[in-house]
Amino acid sequence: MTSLVHADVLFPSDPGIRATARALYQTVAGLPIISPHGHTDPRWYALDEAFADPAQLLIVPDHYIFRMLFSQGIALEDLGVRRLDGSPVEADGRRIWRLFAENYHLFRGTPTRLWMDYVMSSLFQIHEPLGPETAETSYEQIADKLRQPEFRPRALFKRFNIEVIATTEGALDDLRWHRMIRDSGWDGRVVTAYRPDAVVDPDFEGFPANLDQFGQLTGEDTGTWSGYLAAHRQRRAYFKSFGATSSDHGHATADTANLSTAEASALFNRVRSGKAEAADRRLFRGQMLTEMAKMSLDDGLVLQIHPGSWRNHSPAMMTRHGRDMGFDIPTRTDYVGALKPLLDAVGLEKDLTVVLFTLDETSYARELAPLAGVYPALKLGPAWWFHDSPEGMRRFREMTTETAGFYNTVGFNDDTRAFPSIPARHDIARRVDCAFLARLVAEHRLREEEAFDLAKELAYTLAKKAYRL
Amino acid sequence: MTSLVHADVLFPSDPGIRATARALYQTVAGLPIISPHGHTDPRWYALDEAFADPAQLLIVPDHYIFRMLFSQGIALEDLGVRRLDGSPVEADGRRIWRLFAENYHLFRGTPTRLWMDYVMSSLFQIHEPLGPETAETSYEQIADKLRQPEFRPRALFKRFNIEVIATTEGALDDLRWHRMIRDSGWDGRVVTAYRPDAVVDPDFEGFPANLDQFGQLTGEDTGTWSGYLAAHRQRRAYFKSFGATSSDHGHATADTANLSTAEASALFNRVRSGKAEAADRRLFRGQMLTEMAKMSLDDGLVLQIHPGSWRNHSPAMMTRHGRDMGFDIPTRTDYVGALKPLLDAVGLEKDLTVVLFTLDETSYARELAPLAGVYPALKLGPAWWFHDSPEGMRRFREMTTETAGFYNTVGFNDDTRAFPSIPARHDIARRVDCAFLARLVAEHRLREEEAFDLAKELAYTLAKKAYRL
Amino acid sequence: MTSLVHADVLFPSDPGIRATARALYQTVAGLPIISPHGHTDPRWYALDEAFADPAQLLIVPDHYIFRMLFSQGIALEDLGVRRLDGSPVEADGRRIWRLFAENYHLFRGTPTRLWMDYVMSSLFQIHEPLGPETAETSYEQIADKLRQPEFRPRALFKRFNIEVIATTEGALDDLRWHRMIRDSGWDGRVVTAYRPDAVVDPDFEGFPANLDQFGQLTGEDTGTWSGYLAAHRQRRAYFKSFGATSSDHGHATADTANLSTAEASALFNRVRSGKAEAADRRLFRGQMLTEMAKMSLDDGLVLQIHPGSWRNHSPAMMTRHGRDMGFDIPTRTDYVGALKPLLDAVGLEKDLTVVLFTLDETSYARELAPLAGVYPALKLGPAWWFHDSPEGMRRFREMTTETAGFYNTVGFNDDTRAFPSIPARHDIARRVDCAFLARLVAEHRLREEEAFDLAKELAYTLAKKAYRL
Repeated sequence: MTSLVHADVLFPSDPGIRATARALYQTVAGLPIISPHGHTDPRWYALDEAFADPAQLLIVPDHYIFRMLFSQGIALEDLGVRRLDGSPVEADGRRIWRLFAENYHLFRGTPTRLWMDYVMSSLFQIHEPLGPETAETSYEQIADKLRQPEFRPRALFKRFNIEVIATTEGALDDLRWHRMIRDSGWDGRVVTAYRPDAVVDPDFEGFPANLDQFGQLTGEDTGTWSGYLAAHRQRRAYFKSFGATSSDHGHATADTANLSTAEASALFNRVRSGKAEAADRRLFRGQMLTEMAKMSLDDGLVLQIHPGSWRNHSPAMMTRHGRDMGFDIPTRTDYVGALKPLLDAVGLEKDLTVVLFTLDETSYARELAPLAGVYPALKLGPAWWFHDSPEGMRRFREMTTETAGFYNTVGFNDDTRAFPSIPARHDIARRVDCAFLARLVAEHRLREEEAFDLAKELAYTLAKKAYRL
Repeated sequence: MTSLVHADVLFPSDPGIRATARALYQTVAGLPIISPHGHTDPRWYALDEAFADPAQLLIVPDHYIFRMLFSQGIALEDLGVRRLDGSPVEADGRRIWRLFAENYHLFRGTPTRLWMDYVMSSLFQIHEPLGPETAETSYEQIADKLRQPEFRPRALFKRFNIEVIATTEGALDDLRWHRMIRDSGWDGRVVTAYRPDAVVDPDFEGFPANLDQFGQLTGEDTGTWSGYLAAHRQRRAYFKSFGATSSDHGHATADTANLSTAEASALFNRVRSGKAEAADRRLFRGQMLTEMAKMSLDDGLVLQIHPGSWRNHSPAMMTRHGRDMGFDIPTRTDYVGALKPLLDAVGLEKDLTVVLFTLDETSYARELAPLAGVYPALKLGPAWWFHDSPEGMRRFREMTTETAGFYNTVGFNDDTRAFPSIPARHDIARRVDCAFLARLVAEHRLREEEAFDLAKELAYTLAKKAYRL
Repeated sequence: MTSLVHADVLFPSDPGIRATARALYQTVAGLPIISPHGHTDPRWYALDEAFADPAQLLIVPDHYIFRMLFSQGIALEDLGVRRLDGSPVEADGRRIWRLFAENYHLFRGTPTRLWMDYVMSSLFQIHEPLGPETAETSYEQIADKLRQPEFRPRALFKRFNIEVIATTEGALDDLRWHRMIRDSGWDGRVVTAYRPDAVVDPDFEGFPANLDQFGQLTGEDTGTWSGYLAAHRQRRAYFKSFGATSSDHGHATADTANLSTAEASALFNRVRSGKAEAADRRLFRGQMLTEMAKMSLDDGLVLQIHPGSWRNHSPAMMTRHGRDMGFDIPTRTDYVGALKPLLDAVGLEKDLTVVLFTLDETSYARELAPLAGVYPALKLGPAWWFHDSPEGMRRFREMTTETAGFYNTVGFNDDTRAFPSIPARHDIARRVDCAFLARLVAEHRLREEEAFDLAKELAYTLAKKAYRL
């Protein structure tokens, strides 16, 4: 019986490259995981309860999985995805798992397939390919494991060799789970990250009420520009006290602005009144990126910009199932013009770190690498979301390295809420990077000892350093 | 004497990958051809007459060929391409063929070279490279074959192992050749496809007269919106009666609209009057894509959208030689915003199939794969036109598979009017796909038995299923 | 002791491809260098003085180097880059060289690293990797060589096997160094190229004064459109008398226009008055590209269009250090619409050569190859600037060859002011092209003898022919 995941998975077939890739990988495979950006639930680490059944753990919350099944005509309800109107959806984990297993061939060639095989194989000791015939036994085997104490969140955290993981919380979050983790005396390092979209984006649901709550939480007057900024400063400090080393911003574009205090204050008043036009609302989001960057200069938080997703593209699905249902679609994204106001303000600051992500790969070689290759404040985030895949990561290195080098990148982000897949994701990134380095060695573009250095930088050190962890 | 086309053509050099590619290819090389989208002339199959001389068959009608020669300073007139003003052009097939042979080196590295070598070698048993020295003998050999009955269209159809081929006819076409094919009792399966650009695009030459003719053909009142739609429904049914399973739409952009009946009716009236502004004409084209999609929900025709070509870029060439003279140039194309009205209307329908093509490869990973990877109505057409080439097909797979999978693609379209090249085109697509699958196997991203499954899906099954053939 | 540059550098690892790449390379490695576009200083060839110290030669003027170091927090002042305000900067070559050596790891994976290793190894006989430990000895060794007569510009010119090199001078340049070279009787062939941005771009510093000077230089009345055009014609002829075979235009976009004489004249008057709006200034630049193309039809100069760079992106750096400080960032660039007026005017002329460059790789397959693959006047310049790199050159071939072929490209441009790196740059281009050809041979897409032909075309002949050198 062979493993579902071959020891040489993702290494190029050419023997010369493969041997080097293997050798490089051997030195980084066992390094601890630095996970500076992700979406796991801090509640897991706080309560350390057993995970629910296999479907609830592995399928129902995974938008990569249900979007593919949906694209082939399978109803989300049959996959147990809840409806906003409360109508019943499939609740039987076995049936959901079976439906997934019957359609597992749809994932051939996708990262989901790699992650899932890796999780089944490494974590749950399943060695038969998933399919209709193995649906039952694999479900049982996973369910059985999940009842064991070694499969509780904290045990997995240790087993996964996670040195530090960041979760992401909204500016209004009380961080109760982080407090509980801290109070528990557990030695796992779980930090938060400051994600203020709900109080920064005038188009966010409930924005005015959010600002009110933001004021109550902080005791600042969020009816004024200065009070609003003070509230941010206070919350950032609060998040820092729970380990945060970064903020994160999921704007639709990379637009920034750098208004005078008077202009910004007037803009805030228009936005606060709820009467701002679309252009003003956009301008406000842009201004806030620059404000956040300025605060970062003071408090040292790393600023992450994640633009370019058209969120909730299908209104019918938004109404039926809500956000994050696989209907976020990438769009063309400009950085060179969009970031200029921010860069004019703080781009030359070498103590500032702004990490740029993209869903538009055309920007890698054309815009992002040239920008990060000269502005001290800029670094490149790894291949993101749909591009967090073997081909996507390869393209990222091929299209950024020659202009930005390796040292203007920040290692890997798993960016996931799928906790069991974290080791798989980091392992895949390490393999793809080792394969890339091995090719450079094989083509005599890099000396072998340099590749060994770099393999460790890409797998571990750069993330730790860039995110100040 | 060796063949012009090596048995391993297009298989990667790495021995591990090549062996698997070969093995996969062996299982699909002999599969029948499904050609669901193309531009061969139904008259050929109807009349089954001998083709004219080699130049008229292989050079004069092939825009890939004459655009390259023209780019290097050769006059189209010397290639026998007719002028709209009726001035004489070269009529001697031998001279045209010689000019082509003398410049055959210009095609090195292009798909035209692969197709032509394949046709000369497989079909005409020519084994010497084309060049000035072999121009005469190759011409003679081809001309000689073309006089033989085994080289008539129907015999070639059988020899090419075509299971079904679709031609493309305008909405005003009387389908006489299709009728003649049917009435002849010949068992070759030739179906039509509904291409209504001439009665859908207000910028099409003779649009108002076309609408009049559309009304006469159908007995509907194409002076009204409802009559106009009824005319479409009737013609679609007529085309279906000649085997059509798809419609095809060659708009400049992917813009769609979904107006109310009242708005659409008013828009139609403005367009019908000939006084519509450019914005209205564009809106009308967009509205019609949605109308066609809605009709597809009723009659089951697969909707194909082929946007992104700036047709007839050179007005001087348009005046001199007319349409389709190699001066159609791809442009940047947006899908995410452009398709939204159509997708909001019918994108979640799982019984609808909309096949998207692109000339803008940047949309593969950024827009098309994410869209097709979630909307049940969407599928991805193969690499198209300038991208119907080994590198283009490889990029298509590399940039779409990880997000859309293989099963949201629809196999290969040859999209050609160059009948003799059809086996070459399908063969190349099969080879490139097998090479891609072989790499996934070699990198342990796919199991071998899965690759065999997929090779057949990509070569045969997906096209048949997606196009309902 | 092994060389810093392996004999097989940049050849693919696959043995079958590598053997062919090596064989191809052997036949072109020794060909003379044709350098039809670059920025070396004609003063060097005129005066033939020894170069200054290693830092002043290799680091201080190289924007690839100092932008990367700056991006990692190193001040340009510490690298000896002069400030416009005259504040002191590091002047000690040894200290600058040491700082570079200590940070040499930042260049891993970049072309700078390849070029520098090549220069140190081939030219200066240094065989130890650069780093903190070797900073001192390598500095000494280079400095020592630079004092020797064999390392003076003319000796290097011969040693580098340069058949002809073009420099680039502004329209107002008196070409004194070129005159001195000619008068010296030296047989090295150094030609100029006509770069009129300063008198064509209304946004150029000192544009009105430049026009005045343009008038004085030529005796034409540059207060009128016809006089202004006559001045251009005269300067072009003057540049031609110093060997120029090309003009070069660094516009922000590829926009062109083709106004009537009356319109153009009126536009010139608005621009000349200094009161033209941004749209008029843009239109004027576009009109001038077409005017230059028309003059090229008369005088035979090859027209080069280098669009798509957002120059001097950081105003703070522009103020502190001036132009060309690594802050030129590529932007999205349209060609299909932008070039249409020029192409409508002269695109079908087969005696005109317009060479297109891009910083936006998305245009290769989508726009540039389709345009160059049909318009007789168009050719594709090589991978440019940030894309003049192994991966960049590979992508250029992969994305242009299938549609434009090899013969619509113009060989390599080093485009550099870094004189010692010229052999490295040409060698790398030859290696990458041989590797690409070798892959085509290995995949049986090209016959071996064709690849040998093409290797020479790409390394030597195409550049010579396209640039009429």
